[in-house]
Amino acid sequence: MSYSTIDHLMMARALRLAQRAAFTTRPNPMVGCVIVQGEDLVGEGWHQKKGGPHAEVFALQAAGDRAKGATAYVTLEPCAHTGSTGPCADALIAAGVSRVVAAMRDPFPQVDGAGFDKLRAAGIAVESGLMEAQARELNRGFLSRIERGRPWLRVKLASSLDGRSAMASGDSKWISGEASRRDVQQWRARSGALLTGAGTVLADDPQLTVRLGDDSAFLPPLRVVLDPGLATVARGRVREGDAPTLYLHAPEAKPPRGLQADHVAVPVNKGRFDLDAVLRLLATRGINEVQVEAGATLAGAFLAAGLVDELLLYIAPVLLGERARPLFDGLHIDAMTERLRLRTVDSRSIGGDMRLLLRPEGTTA
Amino acid sequence: MSYSTIDHLMMARALRLAQRAAFTTRPNPMVGCVIVQGEDLVGEGWHQKKGGPHAEVFALQAAGDRAKGATAYVTLEPCAHTGSTGPCADALIAAGVSRVVAAMRDPFPQVDGAGFDKLRAAGIAVESGLMEAQARELNRGFLSRIERGRPWLRVKLASSLDGRSAMASGDSKWISGEASRRDVQQWRARSGALLTGAGTVLADDPQLTVRLGDDSAFLPPLRVVLDPGLATVARGRVREGDAPTLYLHAPEAKPPRGLQADHVAVPVNKGRFDLDAVLRLLATRGINEVQVEAGATLAGAFLAAGLVDELLLYIAPVLLGERARPLFDGLHIDAMTERLRLRTVDSRSIGGDMRLLLRPEGTTA
Repeated sequence: MSYSTIDHLMMARALRLAQRAAFTTRPNPMVGCVIVQGEDLVGEGWHQKKGGPHAEVFALQAAGDRAKGATAYVTLEPCAHTGSTGPCADALIAAGVSRVVAAMRDPFPQVDGAGFDKLRAAGIAVESGLMEAQARELNRGFLSRIERGRPWLRVKLASSLDGRSAMASGDSKWISGEASRRDVQQWRARSGALLTGAGTVLADDPQLTVRLGDDSAFLPPLRVVLDPGLATVARGRVREGDAPTLYLHAPEAKPPRGLQADHVAVPVNKGRFDLDAVLRLLATRGINEVQVEAGATLAGAFLAAGLVDELLLYIAPVLLGERARPLFDGLHIDAMTERLRLRTVDSRSIGGDMRLLLRPEGTTA
Repeated sequence: MSYSTIDHLMMARALRLAQRAAFTTRPNPMVGCVIVQGEDLVGEGWHQKKGGPHAEVFALQAAGDRAKGATAYVTLEPCAHTGSTGPCADALIAAGVSRVVAAMRDPFPQVDGAGFDKLRAAGIAVESGLMEAQARELNRGFLSRIERGRPWLRVKLASSLDGRSAMASGDSKWISGEASRRDVQQWRARSGALLTGAGTVLADDPQLTVRLGDDSAFLPPLRVVLDPGLATVARGRVREGDAPTLYLHAPEAKPPRGLQADHVAVPVNKGRFDLDAVLRLLATRGINEVQVEAGATLAGAFLAAGLVDELLLYIAPVLLGERARPLFDGLHIDAMTERLRLRTVDSRSIGGDMRLLLRPEGTTA
């Protein structure tokens, strides 16, 4: 398949539109749509929130009659089923578009090619795969949940140059600078859940809410606390603020009488949570992306289990010394050949810190 | 003092010229000179090597008669004494320049303002301080030796993301990538000495020579091995290749009979080398910049002694786990308030690695 420059420009536009709803579409994917008549953009739209109109509906409304014979660029295959809204494939057919270019097929079981089939059956030219890598990157959380049955897992950590995440005392306030801590809020806002451990609740008492510093709309991420014995349910700022909180505990834990907080038992093997089961549980709750904000123990456990999809690492230009806590605990690597290789997806300066986004080799969205 | 755009452009040119001899002028400073008649550059030159003509001489030769009434831009105060060559101040006077703009005064005791005095006495307008910070940065090694009596100390380290410099076994081959290892050669070439410890000689057996991969001229840096008991003098690639080697040892060490290698005793306190004495000794040998390429113990000792001027850190996108060796040993920091803060002077990608140049807060060239 060979695409023109116009094709690329329009799909890039659709991807940027889709991104606008990064904080609000959950658990739905982000989708953007652009309607083009010749070289003229005649309508555009994006899916803003679950239950609201899909991207195609907004774009077709804007295009009106000019949609007839036009090309529709969509970042994801148009739906063929009636969910909260009518099937977008039907709307595109009704509007008379002559060509649909999609970035990718929608793996959601109720779509999964049926949208394309419906369009083709109506005589519309359908092409898929333009800028697919970017489209997958955009919806890596949604795709992970649908395709792998677990959310995309991001571990956020702040580290010194010498790879230390906290003092020996547990004190980790503040390794990274103010600009980094503000930047983290953007990543929280796109996450379906923010996950931490009882140890972090006791040591740092984070609220784990989103504080963007402006009036951007966002869905408050679910706060998830891994607390085997439900030792922290009576306290903690993680229960305050305008966001739900879920405690995951060992099957044998006895919830305190009258516990209001949402809590679910998760299997434990040899005293450790079955982290794969934790993620599968969160997927059933519609969580696309999980951001882990915890200490070295939990971060190391996810990494050792091979469940980390990306590492969001803020490196501050400080040294904490060899007595300080490591970045990850429980990584038992004895030879250089066993080292864990990552790929740097993005690196930039944030205030005085370096921000790296890394993925284990072989991990793709 | 207010300088024009032409002034800035010409001094920037002179600084770039000076830099060309970064690998060859030692122990002399790098100096560049540009002669400008009106807005026309009529001559330029740079000091290439000790014993050879100074920058001003090359520039005046190129300018010829056009030097009369011209402005001379020099990155360092012209010399007033007869060293290997005649005084540059005299040459500028003889050529009839009417204005001399210097980036900085030369702190070398035989100059130290005398060059400026001589020029002023001859009726030449003299200004100093244009782009002084850049000029000090360029010659931070020379300036450190003259002003502080010790070389500028750079510690080069390769680290994993989790701040580890070697496996527990000592294996450190290769944390950083090939591009980083090539890049290190440039930093070696500008160093007057490459310093390592007996432990690194035994574990890694580095040759510590410069391998630029092209035919650029360079002076081979002195290889310095801190070896308290002279335990490694009989072996090691650090004695091979076309570069001198100096062993520093404890006063009580017995040099093996017939030892050919250059060796000097240095004071030891409580079983540890007096690192300040080590650096003062190297300064007396005309070493401007020392690059430490050693393990965590020696790197940590220099850092703990407050003797590190800059850290050249290659961070590879790998994790080595908490059993691996720390970046620095002997940094006993117990509270966040005691952390060692650095300033990021430069950060960039080198192949798949990140390269950071950092200086302890308060350190300036």
